[in-house]
Amino acid sequence: MASGNIIVAQSGGPSVAINASLAGVLAAAMNNDNYNTVYGSVYGIIGVLEDNLINLTEKANEDSSFIDTLKISPAMYLGSCRYKLPDYEDDDAPYAFIFNQFAKYNISAFFYIGGNDSMDTVLKLSHYGEQIGSDIRIVGIPKTIDNDLCVTDHTPGFGSAAKYVASSVLEIAHDTFIYSVPSVTIVEIMGRDAGWLTASSALARNEYSPAPHLIYCPEVAFDKNAFVEDVRKMLTKYSNVIVAVSEGIRDKDGNYISASTAVNDQFGHSQLSGTGKCLEYLVKETLNIKVRSIELNVLQRCAAHIASKTDIDESFLLGKNAVSYAEKGLSKCMLTVTRTSNAPYTIEIGTTDIKSIANKEKNIPREWINEKGNDVNSAMIEYLAPLIEGETNVAYKNGLPIYLPVGHLSSDPSDRKDY
Amino acid sequence: MASGNIIVAQSGGPSVAINASLAGVLAAAMNNDNYNTVYGSVYGIIGVLEDNLINLTEKANEDSSFIDTLKISPAMYLGSCRYKLPDYEDDDAPYAFIFNQFAKYNISAFFYIGGNDSMDTVLKLSHYGEQIGSDIRIVGIPKTIDNDLCVTDHTPGFGSAAKYVASSVLEIAHDTFIYSVPSVTIVEIMGRDAGWLTASSALARNEYSPAPHLIYCPEVAFDKNAFVEDVRKMLTKYSNVIVAVSEGIRDKDGNYISASTAVNDQFGHSQLSGTGKCLEYLVKETLNIKVRSIELNVLQRCAAHIASKTDIDESFLLGKNAVSYAEKGLSKCMLTVTRTSNAPYTIEIGTTDIKSIANKEKNIPREWINEKGNDVNSAMIEYLAPLIEGETNVAYKNGLPIYLPVGHLSSDPSDRKDY
Repeated sequence: MASGNIIVAQSGGPSVAINASLAGVLAAAMNNDNYNTVYGSVYGIIGVLEDNLINLTEKANEDSSFIDTLKISPAMYLGSCRYKLPDYEDDDAPYAFIFNQFAKYNISAFFYIGGNDSMDTVLKLSHYGEQIGSDIRIVGIPKTIDNDLCVTDHTPGFGSAAKYVASSVLEIAHDTFIYSVPSVTIVEIMGRDAGWLTASSALARNEYSPAPHLIYCPEVAFDKNAFVEDVRKMLTKYSNVIVAVSEGIRDKDGNYISASTAVNDQFGHSQLSGTGKCLEYLVKETLNIKVRSIELNVLQRCAAHIASKTDIDESFLLGKNAVSYAEKGLSKCMLTVTRTSNAPYTIEIGTTDIKSIANKEKNIPREWINEKGNDVNSAMIEYLAPLIEGETNVAYKNGLPIYLPVGHLSSDPSDRKDY
Repeated sequence: MASGNIIVAQSGGPSVAINASLAGVLAAAMNNDNYNTVYGSVYGIIGVLEDNLINLTEKANEDSSFIDTLKISPAMYLGSCRYKLPDYEDDDAPYAFIFNQFAKYNISAFFYIGGNDSMDTVLKLSHYGEQIGSDIRIVGIPKTIDNDLCVTDHTPGFGSAAKYVASSVLEIAHDTFIYSVPSVTIVEIMGRDAGWLTASSALARNEYSPAPHLIYCPEVAFDKNAFVEDVRKMLTKYSNVIVAVSEGIRDKDGNYISASTAVNDQFGHSQLSGTGKCLEYLVKETLNIKVRSIELNVLQRCAAHIASKTDIDESFLLGKNAVSYAEKGLSKCMLTVTRTSNAPYTIEIGTTDIKSIANKEKNIPREWINEKGNDVNSAMIEYLAPLIEGETNVAYKNGLPIYLPVGHLSSDPSDRKDY
């Protein structure tokens, strides 16, 4: 193939590992004679549409630690977007513009790192490219803490988020076990539709701590009465009960368990309450016990100081492989991870047609959740355990982790320094 | 002095450093011929009243890594309590019982590790001991993430909590800066009466991130209109504004800023809303912008995997010094830290009469907060910066930090294993 340049972009929600894939693309391209400059598109595909590109090759040449620090920095170095391309049959203007941009910058490969919605963009660009007979490789690199992409064994970003969730639940258990007063602690975990991250709280269990004592995922319809009964029963065995619950649990009719369903009648406006708060009030009301709810919130996806080394290394490797697959001519695809063995844990990296990924979702198999729907079983634990293994070596300065600033901010620091 | 035994106990809220002081007491006593066995009292002073003691010397002899792992484990190894002794003039029965226990176990020194309420117990036991002519040393060892004890420059546990708060705000900033859509993020931080921990969020600032853009501590009366104006103004300069706010902020009449004051009229029941949620709704209502609130919650005080080495080392040293001070005859006192230099950071350990500590509180000096009351100034930053320096070497197993189980649980594991 003739040598050319690369554009890479990031999209969707942040994660701890998405910059590792970006670093992998950059590292591989700089070691490959068929590729010259790697451009980063600011704010996802928007950067291509607005001609807002960062020369990443230049950055890496200027700073020898750039790639290593990028690899362990949280969120998107290039910024993100939630932009959905129109169908090109309805409106092909953005497509024509994007492929003009590709020509202008002599692009031979475009990489999009993201989750489900981002793969929709990869699919649409692939279709359009095919239509106009373009030979530019369009490749998706997976990323989502939700772990809900099909075909791939798991997704970059998930392992680190799972490690954060499990560590936090363990530390919350220590915090809770010190009092003799019985208590219930509800930990609300991200995952609107898939319970993978909530399930990973089970990794917190060890020889002295059974926490979380109960786990509720959105894959099983949530029953308020059964939940109260589960907690009541657990309190007969344990003084301090910790419950892991997905933000996305729904009742059998598909209604989210939030203020509007469980608390509204008694406490008023539903907007004030998330799932954890809702269960907190439910427990208080029914069991009259000390209860607290904790929302792990965005730290699940940005606490890079406790990233999983397995996750970061795999994400980096996916980025590198994306470049070599593109060079070999693969396009209209997403990189995938196949688990070849669980003990010892080994994987193979491959690709899948983008059509098998975009706009589809992977949920927890029902048989990995126990019959009552209040815990996960050993198959789930075996699947999860290798993904949180290993620690990255985050360096610290002045007591804080050293990360790379978000790229588009550092490119115009004058705008940001006057505080 | 004649050789004797030690009882040590922990009380109040958990922290990341309180076990380091316990480890210090144990390490020093085991190296001191004047002391034989160190007993740990389970659930604070309650353990003495209920004759529930753990032989810590035995534990350390059985396991050579016991003291080192104890030093970096979160929350109270011995469990905690919120028990307040009655005045002995009103009821001296518990006092008589406690000093009987001391005699029974041949105790020559009693150490209580805790915050304000715990020092009240030290004061009362000291008074009673004086009254009955006891020569048992009664010594307090400070601990509180709130940093609100008088005389001592700062308190063990605070530095680690401050490091967690600053790191989290930095990581939240990365998470927030990736979108081009303007937003406001409210971070609610612990501290009912003193704003030290909220102020420590300022350490998150670096050359690329001005977050938190605004800081509100309970030391200054909170004005809703001024707050909205502050945020509005900040949004003209910055696209993504992060606000650090203490859970304990109050208006000029002393009312907490929670649902009941700011949100109640429109949104209903006050119990559903904390300070962060309240400000979230206030911003949404007045500025009509994307807004989110994050409550850092108990992880501030239990995330031992990101403890401050300075904090852990000082806490250990305070425990060690407590033993040598007791040996020298000091009693009715609390250990203190005096800062002898800020750059380089050096401290001296001393003691102060327990009367100057118990039931008193230390707030942020008004001059360390800016005139408008929406930020801290450089004197505050200089004070805080050394306290979060350094990282401990927490070991990991199966991807999770290795901690010591809470002692009273591990002593009866059969009760805990059947999940």
